Amino acid sequence: MPTYTAPVKDLQFVLHDVLNVSGSDVPGYSELEADFTSAVLEEAGKLTSEVLAPLNVVGDHEGCRLENGVVYTPTGFKDAFEQVKEGGWTGLDMPEEYGGQNMPYVLGTAVGEMFSASNQAFTMYQGLTHGAAAAILAHGTDEQKNKWLPKMVSCEWTGTMNLTEPHCGTDLGLMRTKAEPQDNGTYKISGQKIFISAGDHDMADNIVHLVLAKVPGGPEGIKGVSLFIVPKFLVDDEGNIGARNGVSVGSIEEKMGIHGNSTCVLNYDDAEGYLIGDLNKGMRAMFTMMNEARLGVGMQGLAQAEVAYQNALTYAKDRLQGRDVTGVKNPDGPADPLIVHPDIRRSLMDQKSFAEGARAFILWGATMIDKAHRSGDKDADGLISLLTPVIKGFLTDEGYDMTVKAQQVYGGHGYIEEWGMSQFTRDARIAMIYEGANGVQALDLVGRKLAADGGKHVMAFFELVKTFCKENGEDEALADFVGPLKQASKDLQAAGMYFMQAGMKNPNDALSGSNDFMHLFGHVCLGLMWAQMAKAANAALAAGTGDAAFYETKLATGRYYMARRLPATGMHLARIQSGGDTVMALTADQF
Amino acid sequence: MPTYTAPVKDLQFVLHDVLNVSGSDVPGYSELEADFTSAVLEEAGKLTSEVLAPLNVVGDHEGCRLENGVVYTPTGFKDAFEQVKEGGWTGLDMPEEYGGQNMPYVLGTAVGEMFSASNQAFTMYQGLTHGAAAAILAHGTDEQKNKWLPKMVSCEWTGTMNLTEPHCGTDLGLMRTKAEPQDNGTYKISGQKIFISAGDHDMADNIVHLVLAKVPGGPEGIKGVSLFIVPKFLVDDEGNIGARNGVSVGSIEEKMGIHGNSTCVLNYDDAEGYLIGDLNKGMRAMFTMMNEARLGVGMQGLAQAEVAYQNALTYAKDRLQGRDVTGVKNPDGPADPLIVHPDIRRSLMDQKSFAEGARAFILWGATMIDKAHRSGDKDADGLISLLTPVIKGFLTDEGYDMTVKAQQVYGGHGYIEEWGMSQFTRDARIAMIYEGANGVQALDLVGRKLAADGGKHVMAFFELVKTFCKENGEDEALADFVGPLKQASKDLQAAGMYFMQAGMKNPNDALSGSNDFMHLFGHVCLGLMWAQMAKAANAALAAGTGDAAFYETKLATGRYYMARRLPATGMHLARIQSGGDTVMALTADQF
Repeated sequence: MPTYTAPVKDLQFVLHDVLNVSGSDVPGYSELEADFTSAVLEEAGKLTSEVLAPLNVVGDHEGCRLENGVVYTPTGFKDAFEQVKEGGWTGLDMPEEYGGQNMPYVLGTAVGEMFSASNQAFTMYQGLTHGAAAAILAHGTDEQKNKWLPKMVSCEWTGTMNLTEPHCGTDLGLMRTKAEPQDNGTYKISGQKIFISAGDHDMADNIVHLVLAKVPGGPEGIKGVSLFIVPKFLVDDEGNIGARNGVSVGSIEEKMGIHGNSTCVLNYDDAEGYLIGDLNKGMRAMFTMMNEARLGVGMQGLAQAEVAYQNALTYAKDRLQGRDVTGVKNPDGPADPLIVHPDIRRSLMDQKSFAEGARAFILWGATMIDKAHRSGDKDADGLISLLTPVIKGFLTDEGYDMTVKAQQVYGGHGYIEEWGMSQFTRDARIAMIYEGANGVQALDLVGRKLAADGGKHVMAFFELVKTFCKENGEDEALADFVGPLKQASKDLQAAGMYFMQAGMKNPNDALSGSNDFMHLFGHVCLGLMWAQMAKAANAALAAGTGDAAFYETKLATGRYYMARRLPATGMHLARIQSGGDTVMALTADQF
Repeated sequence: MPTYTAPVKDLQFVLHDVLNVSGSDVPGYSELEADFTSAVLEEAGKLTSEVLAPLNVVGDHEGCRLENGVVYTPTGFKDAFEQVKEGGWTGLDMPEEYGGQNMPYVLGTAVGEMFSASNQAFTMYQGLTHGAAAAILAHGTDEQKNKWLPKMVSCEWTGTMNLTEPHCGTDLGLMRTKAEPQDNGTYKISGQKIFISAGDHDMADNIVHLVLAKVPGGPEGIKGVSLFIVPKFLVDDEGNIGARNGVSVGSIEEKMGIHGNSTCVLNYDDAEGYLIGDLNKGMRAMFTMMNEARLGVGMQGLAQAEVAYQNALTYAKDRLQGRDVTGVKNPDGPADPLIVHPDIRRSLMDQKSFAEGARAFILWGATMIDKAHRSGDKDADGLISLLTPVIKGFLTDEGYDMTVKAQQVYGGHGYIEEWGMSQFTRDARIAMIYEGANGVQALDLVGRKLAADGGKHVMAFFELVKTFCKENGEDEALADFVGPLKQASKDLQAAGMYFMQAGMKNPNDALSGSNDFMHLFGHVCLGLMWAQMAKAANAALAAGTGDAAFYETKLATGRYYMARRLPATGMHLARIQSGGDTVMALTADQF
């Protein structure tokens, strides 16, 4: 069975050596001293590796079941959820007034990686609750916040997000779920929602559904969509749970993965609901939380890649098969371990350099969200909005590929469910789809974010890369990093320039390259992360502090990324510059 | 539920317009007139789309079950297998003297694509039998052939291949299964074999296991391995089935996919076995069939990509979501079909251009196997030996990626098992692993095949590309093809040159790039196929024969491949030329 070890040391490196969080003036960051974050991460690491990771395969095998309208989670989930609640993990970065610990989002993100890596399906119950609570926090009235948040922050009640219907996912303007206004100010919600993660279960006393619906007579399409709180059980003004509301589980979907999470079809039949935020501004309310939610999904891509890599590495060290082509390495054994073989190393280095680069990228992104929320930093908000589709799309595409590579290291055993490697791949697959399919992320990036605020944020990104290259261009210890980063950034700029010129004339020329652009951008971001990590590692080595072997490994891993992964930018640029003609040449009938 | 339509027209195009099979002097090819192959393909198409395809999802859901030592296949498999036998499909390309139809391998391959695409798990029962029969045909005595082959050709008895043991897959020299010689010339086989596809089932009266084992006292390692026929039931000299032999099913593996195929742990306990081929030459006997077996697995990569693409295309035309950015296309509907969106097209064109290119590549490869076997053509044998790891490794890696892309077109529904897209991905995954994991294919290509016969075959390949480019370089109608093909071929040559120079000094420099080289080579092959297909399409258009729209579509699809897929060669070259230093920098402990 696979195991999981929390990468505390690497998280600490990014938080402190690279991002220097405790030296930042973002409110709350001064508390993030290395000793403190280390204690938090160690504690989370223990819980995730000892309690949640062993349940991962249980959740996969058992799945959730629906009996007489009641959803049961897999064996052990309920007990583990109690431990998570008791540890206070569910409110780590939520406000103190609602029972949270008010920690910065960046710390919640570091902890979140561990939770997702150890058990993605389990962690989603808590993650969806966090997302729903954040929406109420941002858009609810004080009364609503006081009523719903304390129990959600503690996860006594969990939350869900209800957007998709059978005929509409991406295009929510087609939505049919209705909300009929009542005389007492409430609404009666009716309709069917599908793909509702954590939609029902037996681990909480109540479930707070956030539901998008249309009030009859409102504007057509997406402009007539509003957001409602619809609890599973009604709650009186004293917070007591009352009658069952008109929402029921139609079925639990059978999915490729994340079997431990109950993905429900929910039927709303005159369910009592409460408007949250402004009428007909439901999408805005839902999307306020989008950067965080999408960063969270990007993190799932990293998380599955990380845990899959850890197990592939163990297997590569243990499994004896064949001999090192340059000379026997294990003369006393019948064969050498897999890790001696260059192509196995190539695969492991792909995985390792991705996971560490992605970790830095996500934590950097989380600091921007903190800056935007805690310091009102508009530039940080603009930059993270630009990078969000890259984090979500690139990291989940790549993260999935890495789980496939990790599975491959196991040979035939990778295909056998007993060994657990298939689950990482099957679980990772969903992250490319939900919270906006990756094609939609690419469209968002090229069609919207690139030109937002007159292209100010993408220029700021280029400036950031340029400044780094300028400041460190003479540093010979960074020569393996600055040169490739410059080249990759040049490719990205050329792609942006192509979109400006060709895309203006024909949007299809730009949109045909949107997926490649997202990947090109992602590689430049990871290249930048690696350059910054190399700089931090060099500094630590020069200072003689810490574990020199760790920093040397970091540098070697970074060099691999720059030499072996970054050249993808040229391919993406060539595809982009080939334009939309070949993509759009056929009529639909000609296919 | 997904459907499957046999691509008869496209297969006919490759067989006749591109490969001109009936004009070839290979024995048996003159029979392959277009009318004849069309009739065969139409008939196979009917069987596969109407009988086998509907059982694909049944096999996935039900899987195989082991009860009291007996393996039961999914509902409907047995009846369908009877239909396949009755149609004479199992002996299509086997010799007439054993009940086959003696058709060329290329026709068997064209038919085989349909079988694999419609139901990979089902088709493997027949495919393994074919492989085992081919080994007996090549290495058995006349007595063995007469005893075993007729019933195997008809699939009254099926066959299996037993190589892997729990502790050894790639490195078969570590094998522990023993074969004790008996006084009567037979052997007693004892040991455990795992991952035995079609290992046991209820669809045949007997199962003929081909088992690798070591005769005690023989040479160490791989040089002491021999091949044995070990039937499930003993058979007397009149061909009557007798007592049960000492082989039993330990368990059926739970796998990520191909649930309809019974992948067994087989326990041999003093089972009676008969040596086939020479003592201690078991690997040679097993590997005689390797080119065919690996081409067959490469074909599975194509087959799953094709069926997944077909369904993604249907969905993209049907599903209404969002509006065409250049103007509404479906004004009477609530939204436009997915296929209007450039990124959906990009994905569909990736899939289409891969499947059609791969189809040509595989059929071309099959003609080389026919030339080698039927005409004793050593050059053809050398070239297909070189290309076999490319066909197996590149087409299954890419084929898998294509199923992931097809699944993505479905959005959330792609993740729900009910829609069937996940199965294509899960089934396709195995092809990257079995019959030599793709890392082993890459090693075989770079470490062995490239320099085989003094590099003669790779030079022949380059010559072939060069000749095509020279002969067609002035043809303006092929300008979009010849230029990119030249560039890609140049990249491939540069990679080969790098291996010659750097790899001589340090094999790790070459082997670190083996996976990239395999992919680089694969792209050049598909580029060559597309250039040849474009030439054939132009010729047909100029002649005014056939369906002009088909040929126009073919040209547009080819242009897409050349512009959008082929630029990958530059990235692979850059990675290769970065050498092995970054790949091998870390010690095992440093990871």
